[in-house]
Amino acid sequence: MINVLFAAKTERWNTYETPLRTAFAEQDLEVDLRTEFPPEDVDYIVYAPNGDLHDFTPFTRCKAVLNLWAGVEDVVGNQTLSQPLARMVDYGLTQGMVEWVTGHTLRHHLGMDQHILGQDGEWRSFVPPLAEDRRVTILGLGTLGLACAKALIGLGFPVTGWSRTAKDIEGITCLNGPDGLREAVSTADVLILLLPNTAATENTVDSQALADMPEGAFIINPGRGPLIDDDALLMALDSGHIAHATLDVFRIEPLPADHPYWSHPRVTVTPHIASETRPSSASRVIAENIRRGQSGEPFLHLVDRGAGY
Amino acid sequence: MINVLFAAKTERWNTYETPLRTAFAEQDLEVDLRTEFPPEDVDYIVYAPNGDLHDFTPFTRCKAVLNLWAGVEDVVGNQTLSQPLARMVDYGLTQGMVEWVTGHTLRHHLGMDQHILGQDGEWRSFVPPLAEDRRVTILGLGTLGLACAKALIGLGFPVTGWSRTAKDIEGITCLNGPDGLREAVSTADVLILLLPNTAATENTVDSQALADMPEGAFIINPGRGPLIDDDALLMALDSGHIAHATLDVFRIEPLPADHPYWSHPRVTVTPHIASETRPSSASRVIAENIRRGQSGEPFLHLVDRGAGY
Repeated sequence: MINVLFAAKTERWNTYETPLRTAFAEQDLEVDLRTEFPPEDVDYIVYAPNGDLHDFTPFTRCKAVLNLWAGVEDVVGNQTLSQPLARMVDYGLTQGMVEWVTGHTLRHHLGMDQHILGQDGEWRSFVPPLAEDRRVTILGLGTLGLACAKALIGLGFPVTGWSRTAKDIEGITCLNGPDGLREAVSTADVLILLLPNTAATENTVDSQALADMPEGAFIINPGRGPLIDDDALLMALDSGHIAHATLDVFRIEPLPADHPYWSHPRVTVTPHIASETRPSSASRVIAENIRRGQSGEPFLHLVDRGAGY
Repeated sequence: MINVLFAAKTERWNTYETPLRTAFAEQDLEVDLRTEFPPEDVDYIVYAPNGDLHDFTPFTRCKAVLNLWAGVEDVVGNQTLSQPLARMVDYGLTQGMVEWVTGHTLRHHLGMDQHILGQDGEWRSFVPPLAEDRRVTILGLGTLGLACAKALIGLGFPVTGWSRTAKDIEGITCLNGPDGLREAVSTADVLILLLPNTAATENTVDSQALADMPEGAFIINPGRGPLIDDDALLMALDSGHIAHATLDVFRIEPLPADHPYWSHPRVTVTPHIASETRPSSASRVIAENIRRGQSGEPFLHLVDRGAGY
């Protein structure tokens, strides 16, 4: 029997208990999973840095601390931590982003909202354009942007990608630099924001970029709130120049209840759900690491204490 | 200059004029496209059988009649037709079906409706399952079912397919026959109906099949209305056993305004838009055939008058 301590907040336990037990069973691991153990009996710790556990000293036989999060900045410097520390590298985070971005792109492409919101008994037949006639631009060609681009290309959308530095990726019209940005937004029937949050990317979507976009374009932001100049976007939505914005991230989260985005008829707010570590896939990563620990194989995603990640 | 007569109803002209002109320009064809010509000046006829043109005798130099529809049953027996007749084989019809089915599958998978319908200022964070945890079953593995299956597999959904006769397709759990049907629906978190409309397929989704489906499953019907026992589906929706049905086809179309589907909170009616010939891609097929006619190449999709299609 392998004793695994779950050391994270109670709401995490509610989310993770079942997927962890499922993942352990899939690996044929005989695990006793609990939120409390005598420290000296613990073999592995499933850990979140915002919980109550901060002294690792009494966990004398613990083989590894398995972080539930990608970020380890709040634990990597802990002087009591002598055990190996693994961070979470979750396939589900990228996959979930692909599903959310593809779903909302198709939603706007197909004009689904008029059916979801307008079941009034009137049969309004129309033929939406095909994906090949709907130009998608993705700002940001990192892991997430690239994965989304590939999924959208697979469905037939012509995809333009913009990145800070020049890239050359098959099947994507790659642009970079300020002139490239202007061209990238000017052909964006759907604009997807997946840039990192840096001083250079703040307000990438400003009044100029919005004016450059095609009339009736859609904006989808699963990246970071500060990428958008909110006042400029609200003006472009008011005028109808931008047909709709689906926003998952905001400068302040949770988005305050009185923010105009909530009530704007051309905005859909989603509560930062596009890119989340997924309990099912993250639990599989943890189960795999425990399997490795039990069979003497090296752990996945070990943190380099010196580098800090 | 190539003289092309558009011989179909006025609403079709409104839909097709621009895409046809675009498609001709893409092929560098210098076309004079009109709805009226002296018959002896016409080089090609773009044709729909429900329009006013039924006597092809005066079109003495016409090289081909290019049908806008897949079906030619209303023109193939026309005794005045001596010109070659091509039917429409539209890439857009399959592609459009893939986009509609993938979009609505992702919509239900991601729980989009709660955001589209519920912008109430409350931040309800949750993490949807990944595609790999959402089992999709497609009834019908013809051209359309297979194309949809491939797109959904590409996004990570596990796909089961059911067909009347046994099939073996890589990546799809293929089932057939009555026992296979029962298994196929019992694992369908999302059930997609793409069976043909025959005496044998009527009421495939009856009260028994609905009872066999998992609690909280979704049904998507872009196939044919009679595949579903409507009363049984309404009961399963009332009880909540079926979480939602998105229906594009009905026994009577347009769906009458007083039909309970329109007002049911767990039903989305769409007006038979999933699978339509698309003006943009159909126009490209027509332009390609005119290019072939001008360069002496054989026409695509020529109708075999003897066989009738």
